[in-house]
Amino acid sequence: MANITKKVSWSSRGDDSALTGEGTPLLNGTEIPKPSRQDPIRGRPKEIPHNEKLLSLKYESLDYDNIENQLFLEEERRMSHMGFRCLEISRWVICGLIGILTGLIACFIDIMVEKLAGYKYQVIKENIEKFTEVGGLSISLILWAVLNCAFVLVGGVMVAFFEPIAAGSGIPQIKCYLNGVKIPRVVRLKTLVVKVIGVICSVAGGLAVGKEGPMIHSGAVVAAGVSQGRSTSLKRDFKMFEYFRRDTEKRDFVSAGAAAGVSAAFGAPVGGVLFSLEEGASFWNQMLTWRIFFASMISTFTLNFFLSIYHGKPGDLSNPGLINFGRFESDSVAYYYYEIPLFMCMGALGGLLGALFNSLNYWLTIFRIRYVHRPCLQVIEALLVAAVTAAVSFTMIYFSNDCQPLGPEHNEEYPLQLFCADGEYNAMATAFFNTPERSVRSLFHNQPGSYNPLTLGLFTLTYFFLACWTYGLAVSAGVFIPSLLIGAAWGRLCGILLASFTPTSPIWADPGKYALIGAAAQLGGIVRMTLSLTVIMVEATGNVTYGLPIMLVLMIAKIVGDYFQEGLYDIHIKLQSVPFLHWEAPATSHWLTAREVMSSPVTCFNRIEKVGTIVDVLSNTSTNHNGFPVVVQVLDSDEPAKLCGLILRSQLIVLLKHKVFVELARSRLSQRKLQLKDFRDAYPRFPPIQSIHVSQDERECMMDLTEFMNPTPYTVPQDTSLPRVFKLFRALGLRHLVVADDVNRVIGLVTRKDLARYHLGKHGLEELQLAQT
Amino acid sequence: MANITKKVSWSSRGDDSALTGEGTPLLNGTEIPKPSRQDPIRGRPKEIPHNEKLLSLKYESLDYDNIENQLFLEEERRMSHMGFRCLEISRWVICGLIGILTGLIACFIDIMVEKLAGYKYQVIKENIEKFTEVGGLSISLILWAVLNCAFVLVGGVMVAFFEPIAAGSGIPQIKCYLNGVKIPRVVRLKTLVVKVIGVICSVAGGLAVGKEGPMIHSGAVVAAGVSQGRSTSLKRDFKMFEYFRRDTEKRDFVSAGAAAGVSAAFGAPVGGVLFSLEEGASFWNQMLTWRIFFASMISTFTLNFFLSIYHGKPGDLSNPGLINFGRFESDSVAYYYYEIPLFMCMGALGGLLGALFNSLNYWLTIFRIRYVHRPCLQVIEALLVAAVTAAVSFTMIYFSNDCQPLGPEHNEEYPLQLFCADGEYNAMATAFFNTPERSVRSLFHNQPGSYNPLTLGLFTLTYFFLACWTYGLAVSAGVFIPSLLIGAAWGRLCGILLASFTPTSPIWADPGKYALIGAAAQLGGIVRMTLSLTVIMVEATGNVTYGLPIMLVLMIAKIVGDYFQEGLYDIHIKLQSVPFLHWEAPATSHWLTAREVMSSPVTCFNRIEKVGTIVDVLSNTSTNHNGFPVVVQVLDSDEPAKLCGLILRSQLIVLLKHKVFVELARSRLSQRKLQLKDFRDAYPRFPPIQSIHVSQDERECMMDLTEFMNPTPYTVPQDTSLPRVFKLFRALGLRHLVVADDVNRVIGLVTRKDLARYHLGKHGLEELQLAQT
Repeated sequence: MANITKKVSWSSRGDDSALTGEGTPLLNGTEIPKPSRQDPIRGRPKEIPHNEKLLSLKYESLDYDNIENQLFLEEERRMSHMGFRCLEISRWVICGLIGILTGLIACFIDIMVEKLAGYKYQVIKENIEKFTEVGGLSISLILWAVLNCAFVLVGGVMVAFFEPIAAGSGIPQIKCYLNGVKIPRVVRLKTLVVKVIGVICSVAGGLAVGKEGPMIHSGAVVAAGVSQGRSTSLKRDFKMFEYFRRDTEKRDFVSAGAAAGVSAAFGAPVGGVLFSLEEGASFWNQMLTWRIFFASMISTFTLNFFLSIYHGKPGDLSNPGLINFGRFESDSVAYYYYEIPLFMCMGALGGLLGALFNSLNYWLTIFRIRYVHRPCLQVIEALLVAAVTAAVSFTMIYFSNDCQPLGPEHNEEYPLQLFCADGEYNAMATAFFNTPERSVRSLFHNQPGSYNPLTLGLFTLTYFFLACWTYGLAVSAGVFIPSLLIGAAWGRLCGILLASFTPTSPIWADPGKYALIGAAAQLGGIVRMTLSLTVIMVEATGNVTYGLPIMLVLMIAKIVGDYFQEGLYDIHIKLQSVPFLHWEAPATSHWLTAREVMSSPVTCFNRIEKVGTIVDVLSNTSTNHNGFPVVVQVLDSDEPAKLCGLILRSQLIVLLKHKVFVELARSRLSQRKLQLKDFRDAYPRFPPIQSIHVSQDERECMMDLTEFMNPTPYTVPQDTSLPRVFKLFRALGLRHLVVADDVNRVIGLVTRKDLARYHLGKHGLEELQLAQT
Repeated sequence: MANITKKVSWSSRGDDSALTGEGTPLLNGTEIPKPSRQDPIRGRPKEIPHNEKLLSLKYESLDYDNIENQLFLEEERRMSHMGFRCLEISRWVICGLIGILTGLIACFIDIMVEKLAGYKYQVIKENIEKFTEVGGLSISLILWAVLNCAFVLVGGVMVAFFEPIAAGSGIPQIKCYLNGVKIPRVVRLKTLVVKVIGVICSVAGGLAVGKEGPMIHSGAVVAAGVSQGRSTSLKRDFKMFEYFRRDTEKRDFVSAGAAAGVSAAFGAPVGGVLFSLEEGASFWNQMLTWRIFFASMISTFTLNFFLSIYHGKPGDLSNPGLINFGRFESDSVAYYYYEIPLFMCMGALGGLLGALFNSLNYWLTIFRIRYVHRPCLQVIEALLVAAVTAAVSFTMIYFSNDCQPLGPEHNEEYPLQLFCADGEYNAMATAFFNTPERSVRSLFHNQPGSYNPLTLGLFTLTYFFLACWTYGLAVSAGVFIPSLLIGAAWGRLCGILLASFTPTSPIWADPGKYALIGAAAQLGGIVRMTLSLTVIMVEATGNVTYGLPIMLVLMIAKIVGDYFQEGLYDIHIKLQSVPFLHWEAPATSHWLTAREVMSSPVTCFNRIEKVGTIVDVLSNTSTNHNGFPVVVQVLDSDEPAKLCGLILRSQLIVLLKHKVFVELARSRLSQRKLQLKDFRDAYPRFPPIQSIHVSQDERECMMDLTEFMNPTPYTVPQDTSLPRVFKLFRALGLRHLVVADDVNRVIGLVTRKDLARYHLGKHGLEELQLAQT
């Protein structure tokens, strides 16, 4: 039987809608519903604003269902067949632009990182070479640490002080956006600028991070900007694409942007489409998928084209993606069915290590939320990590005595001789003294015998903790490449060990194969994507032969990992208390019906409502509703008021701003005619109610909502089971779902938080508490 | 402005639901609403049962929305968390089984075809060699034709006489099934057996067909069978998986089966998943996608494993799929950006040729529907095609003088010397005297110079018409391989011509690259899939380098092709007058509201209804409704009856069969307690109402529907626009959508045909007529 925690504080509060984020005076800590698990040791009075057992009310929802009010329908009906064709063509044009711009950004990041990191490594290499013999390598270490810190300082300051939302990979934020949660400032131009500069600084600064994750966020911002045909930050409106100024259309383009980002990052256009779908979409639409695919394709193409020019081989397009794993030729690295169990074991190991990584990062994140929330502290932490990374790397290289001959096939960019004999180089340095992408490639493709097991073991260990510490810092950085690098290292180690057990068999000869499997296992164990990740890996390696084992490994890693801990992105989403809707309602939630989950009583408006009432309701900061059912009362009858529509706070604010009032004194109802354009111009940053002045006279006027409300909101009866409500809500991307009784009276309203609240815990169904923070 | 054809015959008829297919006495031809376009020349009285301007009423819909009645909810609530876990595990087990069985079937088909075709070609080759010098090759021709006809006779008779639904590739039928249309007998065991034997016969019989399309259908049947844990045909019930005996769950498994089929056919597990989604799913669910992926993976694995044993290389799994395009190694066949325009031109050519193919096949299919509908005629046509194929092939080979040297790298299985010098072989024979799969591979990979342009040109021309004639015959056969073959031939021709224009450039040296692009273009032009086809092609060639150009080519082919004619599968679906729901409502349909599209008046039942009334309504063959809103009337009040649920014909039939009656005489209402199991046992072949005897006494009893009806059907207000209704209907996979007024009275019912009826024609919105056939 399902074990349901009783609702305590909720129903009595009477909130029935998501609360606005910005402009809402946050309630004091003492008024927050207490997290059930307190910190008994420190006992500090409720200083934990984020907790995975809470659901924050500060996030608004997005409207992925069209508001089909009279204005909208009139416009649609006026539009000819040709008009719809033109819209369709502009959608394709926008997707093309998204692809081109995303590709260019990826190109810019790639070239900048290569230049800066190249310069840095060159300087340090020369310095090390100078001091190796005379003694005084501590100066090299300091130089290295200072250079790292300098880069990280720039990146950290930008992120921490200018745009904190640009921290991390941005994938959790984009997941939330596509899920329908409005994360403030996530798709703004400023975020993009900070993100791009930040990621260049953190990769060039030698942190254990990748530049791939942030590409997804960048693509999404590009998409959100281009599709709206204006930039609020730049105060420029190009008067284009006005039709697309609403959440539904914008979301579609953001999906395309995220896909284009993946596509540029990994050279994986199909992987990009699948990523968008796996992480975002709930309703699969063929035309939309094709457009997303188109954006992905253009993005890879643009990136390839410009990079091929940059690399001096114009026109050679067969070298895709920011990351290039190098090509696995199939003949040399075939696998046999008796290797499958081995791969599965590696998958399980990846799952375990991933769960460990995630758990450590989880505790670290909680620590950060509690104690490292001031920008200057965040920058100092980032600098500390940068310095420690340099120091650890240097120490590892210094004490390593794994010397390898510099062969003719050798393709290290910065081979460090250090204490090795002439014509040899330090193998540890290929892993540490390099951008992570190059290190991954070396682990995949270097000849058998390029690394000794001790080197790999130590590298795995140190890099694991460095990467774990780094993720969540206030810098723009992805976790894909570090995960791949850790996995490739221990995977290669497995390969070497296997080969040493059976020295005669030629099958285990190539440890590169195991490095690939290890990389997949580790990445799968950390981020827990399966389908899209398989395709991304296959596309990035340029070989489909490994599709099957990679799939298997990712699945095992996911199953094992899920047993212990959630995926890294989900952890971060939970810790932000975001009301994220999963794919399905919890299995054991048939107990619950709409009556129990809905919020009530609901504030409703009459179809012709007094302006004063509206202003008062909107200004009430203790409720702060965003959606209001509109009801109609039959004149001179005692019948109950019936539901006739739904209107949003944002619409009411536009109406108030344009003074769409009817003076009672006049006999004829004549409102100023408002266009759909007025709503679109205000989208998406509607002013707060406080900024709108309504005079005492105007308060006595009436407002006719008929034209503006959505006259056909979706409703459910109160006996509808939670899974059914959930399915309707999720499949149609709703924001408000009205619960009506058998005579069409409004008795409640279901919003995102009412559904996201229930989740399956260890002991059956659990209910999260709601909090204002 | 939208141009709406007026509804004429519909509203007055008062049907409000899809009509049953089986057991419904078809109305006489004179009562069918007339097709708008008549045949003026022949003027035969309405003998055109199929027409793309009609919508057939004979197809029932499937319920992809759970019927959450009291019984269901009670069961769900009884189930523990562990119970749901077990269910989830059984879902995975079933998917594994589906994968294994589908892989085995693919393996069986492959080996049988290879054996039979090998035997046939060996016999003919020996015969030809015997007669080449003595003269008398006409005997060889006759032998060839007779052998072909023998195979085709077996396949044709099985299909035409035993199971006509097994004809063709089955992809249109599976598309319809996943879309929610119940195609009778499409997922039965008998269909599977006929399909498998049929496809072996038609491929071995030398028809211009492939064995890949039918694999998709086979996988779907396997899935439908395994997931139900019983076989109605074999009268065996394993008492397993009873929970999955409903449309919703079955559909999920059928998606997995279709994916497993694609995966086995092309060695493309990801392509399989995408195929399922592109063609079927509307609601993307992550867990479901993973299960589908798992089934695909297992299917490829099983096939590879057994084929590797069969081919004597046990354990070598890197050779996937029924079709094996051979590996394109990337270094030898790189492409440059200035080839992209060329590829695009080839894509456009593919689109044009595809549209031509489809148009020809369209006229041919109309001809077949009118004149070749008797089984014996169908078999005769198949035999004719088989004989003509042999004759044409023979003639082409006979008159070809394209002799090529038998090199050491040569890998033709049946090289025909014919009139060539010793040590040479006839190049035309590599294309015609071979299974189509091998021909494709030769065109992709044979050395430059293996074919002369004339050979390829003639081959393209003849094979184009042969393939076009063959598709739609009463044999089990796919269109993928013939399309690829045609495309590969003209693609290679393009490559050779390009090379001959610029003899010095090394870039155009390999015509195999152009063969691949041509194959993609032609296939895309015929079937018009983009995303899944790209992935399938990439996975089948084992090289992702060509992903980008293949994508581009498929898109261009689709755009060009769509301008002239629909895709082949869509044509066949339309010609069957299937009420197929596309992804979105037509763009210009905001004019229409639920009030206009719904069917009314609706036959409703009271919550406690007289048995006699129910039997009468169900027996009424002129309406033959499948879903009935249940209403409740407040006692002693003149208020209108309010909607309180929805019940299906199938449920009522089970109730009547089990005599769940309440005798009025008794004071206490005591019905026999019916279990969900009773409904599941009857699923999916519910008996017709005529088979249930209800005595006169029983007719006077009452039936309480409360427990069995769905108490929370989705409703929409009557002003809801068509796109909004469409979105709700399509996204949730509904079968009936109740239109209610503002006091919750039933005023109409929207079913699949009401929505499928509107489509965008050349002159704006058009409305299809409804017909009983």
